[in-house]
Amino acid sequence: MNNKLVQKVSKKAGKPPGALVFIGKKKQEKVKIHLMDYTASTFTEKDAKSVEECFTYMKKPTTTWINVSGIHDEDVVEKLGKRFGLHPLVLEDILNTGQRPKAEDFDKYMFIVLKMIYYNGGTNGIEIEQVSIVLGKGFVISFQEREGDVFNQIRERIRKKGGRFRSLGNDYLAYALMDAIVDNYFSVLENMGERIESIEDELVDNPNPKTLAEIHKLKRELIFLRRSVWPLRDVINNIQRGDSKLFTKKTQIYLRDVYDHAIRVSETIETFRDMVSGMLDIYLSSMSNRMNEVMKVLTIFAAIFIPLTFIAGIYGMNFRFMPELEWEWGYPMVWTIILLVSFTMLYYFRRKGWL
Amino acid sequence: MNNKLVQKVSKKAGKPPGALVFIGKKKQEKVKIHLMDYTASTFTEKDAKSVEECFTYMKKPTTTWINVSGIHDEDVVEKLGKRFGLHPLVLEDILNTGQRPKAEDFDKYMFIVLKMIYYNGGTNGIEIEQVSIVLGKGFVISFQEREGDVFNQIRERIRKKGGRFRSLGNDYLAYALMDAIVDNYFSVLENMGERIESIEDELVDNPNPKTLAEIHKLKRELIFLRRSVWPLRDVINNIQRGDSKLFTKKTQIYLRDVYDHAIRVSETIETFRDMVSGMLDIYLSSMSNRMNEVMKVLTIFAAIFIPLTFIAGIYGMNFRFMPELEWEWGYPMVWTIILLVSFTMLYYFRRKGWL
Amino acid sequence: MNNKLVQKVSKKAGKPPGALVFIGKKKQEKVKIHLMDYTASTFTEKDAKSVEECFTYMKKPTTTWINVSGIHDEDVVEKLGKRFGLHPLVLEDILNTGQRPKAEDFDKYMFIVLKMIYYNGGTNGIEIEQVSIVLGKGFVISFQEREGDVFNQIRERIRKKGGRFRSLGNDYLAYALMDAIVDNYFSVLENMGERIESIEDELVDNPNPKTLAEIHKLKRELIFLRRSVWPLRDVINNIQRGDSKLFTKKTQIYLRDVYDHAIRVSETIETFRDMVSGMLDIYLSSMSNRMNEVMKVLTIFAAIFIPLTFIAGIYGMNFRFMPELEWEWGYPMVWTIILLVSFTMLYYFRRKGWL
Amino acid sequence: MNNKLVQKVSKKAGKPPGALVFIGKKKQEKVKIHLMDYTASTFTEKDAKSVEECFTYMKKPTTTWINVSGIHDEDVVEKLGKRFGLHPLVLEDILNTGQRPKAEDFDKYMFIVLKMIYYNGGTNGIEIEQVSIVLGKGFVISFQEREGDVFNQIRERIRKKGGRFRSLGNDYLAYALMDAIVDNYFSVLENMGERIESIEDELVDNPNPKTLAEIHKLKRELIFLRRSVWPLRDVINNIQRGDSKLFTKKTQIYLRDVYDHAIRVSETIETFRDMVSGMLDIYLSSMSNRMNEVMKVLTIFAAIFIPLTFIAGIYGMNFRFMPELEWEWGYPMVWTIILLVSFTMLYYFRRKGWL
Amino acid sequence: MNNKLVQKVSKKAGKPPGALVFIGKKKQEKVKIHLMDYTASTFTEKDAKSVEECFTYMKKPTTTWINVSGIHDEDVVEKLGKRFGLHPLVLEDILNTGQRPKAEDFDKYMFIVLKMIYYNGGTNGIEIEQVSIVLGKGFVISFQEREGDVFNQIRERIRKKGGRFRSLGNDYLAYALMDAIVDNYFSVLENMGERIESIEDELVDNPNPKTLAEIHKLKRELIFLRRSVWPLRDVINNIQRGDSKLFTKKTQIYLRDVYDHAIRVSETIETFRDMVSGMLDIYLSSMSNRMNEVMKVLTIFAAIFIPLTFIAGIYGMNFRFMPELEWEWGYPMVWTIILLVSFTMLYYFRRKGWL
Repeated sequence: MNNKLVQKVSKKAGKPPGALVFIGKKKQEKVKIHLMDYTASTFTEKDAKSVEECFTYMKKPTTTWINVSGIHDEDVVEKLGKRFGLHPLVLEDILNTGQRPKAEDFDKYMFIVLKMIYYNGGTNGIEIEQVSIVLGKGFVISFQEREGDVFNQIRERIRKKGGRFRSLGNDYLAYALMDAIVDNYFSVLENMGERIESIEDELVDNPNPKTLAEIHKLKRELIFLRRSVWPLRDVINNIQRGDSKLFTKKTQIYLRDVYDHAIRVSETIETFRDMVSGMLDIYLSSMSNRMNEVMKVLTIFAAIFIPLTFIAGIYGMNFRFMPELEWEWGYPMVWTIILLVSFTMLYYFRRKGWL
Repeated sequence: MNNKLVQKVSKKAGKPPGALVFIGKKKQEKVKIHLMDYTASTFTEKDAKSVEECFTYMKKPTTTWINVSGIHDEDVVEKLGKRFGLHPLVLEDILNTGQRPKAEDFDKYMFIVLKMIYYNGGTNGIEIEQVSIVLGKGFVISFQEREGDVFNQIRERIRKKGGRFRSLGNDYLAYALMDAIVDNYFSVLENMGERIESIEDELVDNPNPKTLAEIHKLKRELIFLRRSVWPLRDVINNIQRGDSKLFTKKTQIYLRDVYDHAIRVSETIETFRDMVSGMLDIYLSSMSNRMNEVMKVLTIFAAIFIPLTFIAGIYGMNFRFMPELEWEWGYPMVWTIILLVSFTMLYYFRRKGWL
Repeated sequence: MNNKLVQKVSKKAGKPPGALVFIGKKKQEKVKIHLMDYTASTFTEKDAKSVEECFTYMKKPTTTWINVSGIHDEDVVEKLGKRFGLHPLVLEDILNTGQRPKAEDFDKYMFIVLKMIYYNGGTNGIEIEQVSIVLGKGFVISFQEREGDVFNQIRERIRKKGGRFRSLGNDYLAYALMDAIVDNYFSVLENMGERIESIEDELVDNPNPKTLAEIHKLKRELIFLRRSVWPLRDVINNIQRGDSKLFTKKTQIYLRDVYDHAIRVSETIETFRDMVSGMLDIYLSSMSNRMNEVMKVLTIFAAIFIPLTFIAGIYGMNFRFMPELEWEWGYPMVWTIILLVSFTMLYYFRRKGWL
Repeated sequence: MNNKLVQKVSKKAGKPPGALVFIGKKKQEKVKIHLMDYTASTFTEKDAKSVEECFTYMKKPTTTWINVSGIHDEDVVEKLGKRFGLHPLVLEDILNTGQRPKAEDFDKYMFIVLKMIYYNGGTNGIEIEQVSIVLGKGFVISFQEREGDVFNQIRERIRKKGGRFRSLGNDYLAYALMDAIVDNYFSVLENMGERIESIEDELVDNPNPKTLAEIHKLKRELIFLRRSVWPLRDVINNIQRGDSKLFTKKTQIYLRDVYDHAIRVSETIETFRDMVSGMLDIYLSSMSNRMNEVMKVLTIFAAIFIPLTFIAGIYGMNFRFMPELEWEWGYPMVWTIILLVSFTMLYYFRRKGWL
Repeated sequence: MNNKLVQKVSKKAGKPPGALVFIGKKKQEKVKIHLMDYTASTFTEKDAKSVEECFTYMKKPTTTWINVSGIHDEDVVEKLGKRFGLHPLVLEDILNTGQRPKAEDFDKYMFIVLKMIYYNGGTNGIEIEQVSIVLGKGFVISFQEREGDVFNQIRERIRKKGGRFRSLGNDYLAYALMDAIVDNYFSVLENMGERIESIEDELVDNPNPKTLAEIHKLKRELIFLRRSVWPLRDVINNIQRGDSKLFTKKTQIYLRDVYDHAIRVSETIETFRDMVSGMLDIYLSSMSNRMNEVMKVLTIFAAIFIPLTFIAGIYGMNFRFMPELEWEWGYPMVWTIILLVSFTMLYYFRRKGWL
């Protein structure tokens, strides 16, 4: 998970809006620019060495997809921005990875920010990455924080000669990117679901402080997930219902499908939240049960043996005149009393249901 | 209950939208296709061996109902889809049983997804099944995950010669299917209500960890039920208020009735949620009460006998010069002290209301 | 209280909609049909022996009020329905007493379902009864589950010769019925308010498991009350704002008053819910306090006497060489130590604020 | 605080709407009628002995303010109602002090109900009083439950010769009354704020059952306050946005200010609710802490001295053959063991962090 | 933090609206008036000694920014108000620092109230200050409670000769002020985020009453923060969507950006609230865990040693006829029994999982 609760926006505070400052840890790797250019019949793919290399494809009436992996090089973003006429605030939002999902329509192009979510097996936690998509006339530019494999399936489908994908235009490409991101949420949720189920089993069999820590962690992750996913519904709904000319009628039916998925994702998150908060209640109740059990054991021991010890104490006194001590049957009598008291107490506790 | 928290949609992630992949356990039984074709005066019923068999009834101006039990054979769904001109995303939704209830109007036909809920006595739990209904001009196609008896009453009414049902058209048939599904919720809720009441009795008489587990299970089931039923209101309301030509004015009054039932179902679920969450509070409070009682017993025993034991201990000391030990009335004096202390303590606890 | 959480609607599941089946316990008493027919100048009142007897009054331009007490005779309802042209679903709703409050406008008549609430002193609980009202041109038909005295005041006002009531038409009569039902809620709420206050006093003075049971019962009743009353606001608001010609302008001002009352009723219920849920928190806190107090008593006793017993135990040992035992002042010395220890402990606990 | 949870409306149940019955305790004092009549240049003030005395001022084109303190004399209200043409339901609402804040526009006049809130130092609680205002053409009538000093400042401003107030018309007067009532809320809230802060300090320093009772009382008062204030926003908003001709454009800017205050009042109440409910959590947590501390003291004492007592018990046994008893260094050895055990235990508890 | 829960508005209660009374502690420092006057080409900056000094700049077609630091001098505010034609209620709101964020459009000028939030390292708490902005034709007046450095960056940008800022008009200046205030929230949130994280660590490692106090403090601060920030969204949204001519199209795109930030701020606050309230649950659960652990230690000690002490007590009795005492192997036999009992108990506790 992106562990910082608040993105260090303050670094920027005071700078003029539109100032391009990458917020996040500076990474050393070079930014990777991947380009695909296709029509139903033609297809070019290359790893561009510089931004300028991409510009030549702009004049052609083809669908051009520029995917930028790594946004720590402000220069690349700025050049692309200048060439494609993007508003300075758009460029600022691409670099500032603390955005919430949103879609802004600038007439000539549409700017979409989404959140990609990964389950990181190493840290056993969730990681969130910002993906920005710019859809303009004849082109789609996508920005990822780092290289990933979520879009690979889309690339495969584009490469397939004669595939339906190539003839569907750049709005379908933008849809496909969104769809890939939203579909990816389900695998994260599946993983979470499994963790929830394993905690639930533990809760019944053997609740312990580790369980509590796990519940707490889940709760925290769900708070973050929710924050990333919640605005998604509105975003996709706005795109779908919007009257932007960038999306064709045909693609809008597909957008309705993504919208549906987005709703299911957020509903599942709500369900998980309900379940996790229920688990905390159960945990507390279990703890209460256990404390009760411990208390009963203590009470039974104390209530049986303390009176007996008292009886033994009585006959350990050194008074000169204690007739019982002289009796021949004194000692057996004491044992009889002891057994009587013990059984009475045991009977009493059994009736109370403590045994 | 469908125990998986999240449907394995991820199996599909990356595939093109519209790709037909059945999500769920592959079942071995053959898909059963049941066909009913009727007008006010004519009536045919048969178990079709292949999909193609149904197509001949399409040309007639009759009401044709094709009920497909079992959706694990993607081929059947695909053929039906092609023949009736259904959108690939519709077919995908039929096969993907993780849909939420929804109604989509495709002008020429309407696609409705509902959730059927069963109480499974074997596992003492709830099971959820997806039912998809396609209502087109002159036909209704319904898809069930497996064979069930919920629609039998409808079949009986269709078979009845001269019955009102036959003359009411295919929109009334679609309504009847929805009504049967929603009415079935009530029996599930009744069963739940009985479980809630029996837990409530237990809560008063004898709360124990098993009660807690039962409450937890109920809570979980209600979360799932709610998720399945909540969108139903909007779905039916949309159909009823929508301007689809597929539903006649006459049928819309009946739809208003189903809407009413749907509201009652979801209100009952909310009521149950309120009650179950109240039960957890009561459980915790009861536990607190019991702990208190245990503590009181312990304290009474300890507070009475520990001082007494101390007194006995005093006169068990072996000092050479202890005048009391020599007194003739020493021993009875000690007993007097013991009784005095005991009664004082008992009086004190009684006044505190602990006895 | 109507103890069943869910009405046995399932009895009916599968029957065609509009099938008239009374849901509830069959009562043996005969259905009572009471008729009042009046204009400003004329007035007739009678207990009709059969439904048909009422029909003769229908042709006259008078206001006719037919009150049916007891709805277990499906025949009566059916005949009335046929004569007044009511939709089968209306008749079904009259018989099925699990309806939620609603108002449905069928142009020619309006169908209103309300819930009457009684406090039953015998069971010390709340009972809910369904009252259905049909307002048509020149008539009002009301259905009660059993005979009651809530409408008696209205009857008195109608009987009063020259009273204003008689000249106000049948929409005012329908209003008066609704007003009587809603006003009756206040007396139920007053009774609840008194119970809440007595529990609050108990909570401060002497919280005990019985208090907890009372709180639980109140909570449950409030859940049910709320469910019955909540839709009322919308219902009356819809009637008032609706454009039904059945209600005159003049009566609508009165409806606004009922609406106001309905809001106050539901606000009071919310207030009660807030208070009752606060009481549970207080109960838990009190329990915590008491446990604390018990624990303190135990700890004080144990912490004072256990060390003393140890000291006495030391000098009860039988070692041959224990110099203290031989000292002349040994025994007084031990008592000095004992007193010192006791006072130190008491001082320590006092400083800790436990005494 | 008005201690009754529900106003005894039931007294009235069954009576015809518009029946004038004062609900509340009958007070013995005479109703006081205060009259002010002014224009920019003229000014009359008097305590009217009878209602009729006021009527003479009605014909003049002046602003007339009739303030009625005490509403237990139904006669006064009825006469005023008849003279100014008020609807019977309005008169009923004036007498029935259980109304919620509301504003009703009857074209010729506007009827406004507000709640005045006092802090009563005597009972250390809050008292709620109903103030009804009728604004008509050229007059304002206000009804208070008893004489108060909240409107005195307004009277002063009217009396001031040449003051701006006199020339601002009767709608400004109505505004001024509302403003005075709403401004008064702030002083109640300030007082509450101080109580909250003093409880918060107590919560940290020395939580005890009295604190709990105080929190409970605050919570209860906030529930009532909220109920009285919450509808106020809508009321004032409706007046301000309404198109009543009784309020001039100029006064509406002032109403916007009252609206602003009303929002701040209700936001402050919400803030207080949040804080008070947080305080209950803190109280429970503190109790938990304290119990923990008590338990630790008990455990430390028991765990140290019980084993020691056991050791002493061993050597108090009277076996004939116990070699240790004969040893010369037996007794010191036992003390050594005792000290060893003690220090071990102390070290163990220190490491556990209990000391 | 502004520690008073309710601003002392009551000081003013009863005074006519528009009366200028500064609410808050009177500060001794002189009010500081800073003036900037610029066009793309010209630039003047000065610390004005009196209000009148500023008025000369009003006639010029330049952008004039008057920043007033310190509002305790009612005279300054009044003079400005008279010169710029501000409504008395506006002046009242500027002085009364208890306002909630709002924007009011008075056609000729717009009045905006915002809350500036500082983290005060000294008190380790949050402080809230009111900033009022008046945007009119050719001028912006801003009022701060005291001098601060939040606007310094803006001043720098204005001073920069040939900078873009100078040519953007006074609406951009107003935007820049709002942006600076909102951006400043992020640094406060970052600081809070760090405190939350450090508490979370403490919660796992070593929960103690201090942690509880910290959580309580955070919760309280969040309640206040929320109250200050929540209305901000609506305010900025209203300005942005409003049709005020004071804001140009170009600036509105920038306002959309501030709106976005405001949403992120309030979402972060909600996230923090969720997390903090989760922390309290975790704290309670941890306490429960610890109590359980303490109880176990106590129970183990008591359950092992109390029976042993009883056994020793038995053989400390002084009966004349106790055969065991005479046995040669009596003493070793007792030790054997003691060891047997101990190991049995240890085994029992280990099986219960308490060791």
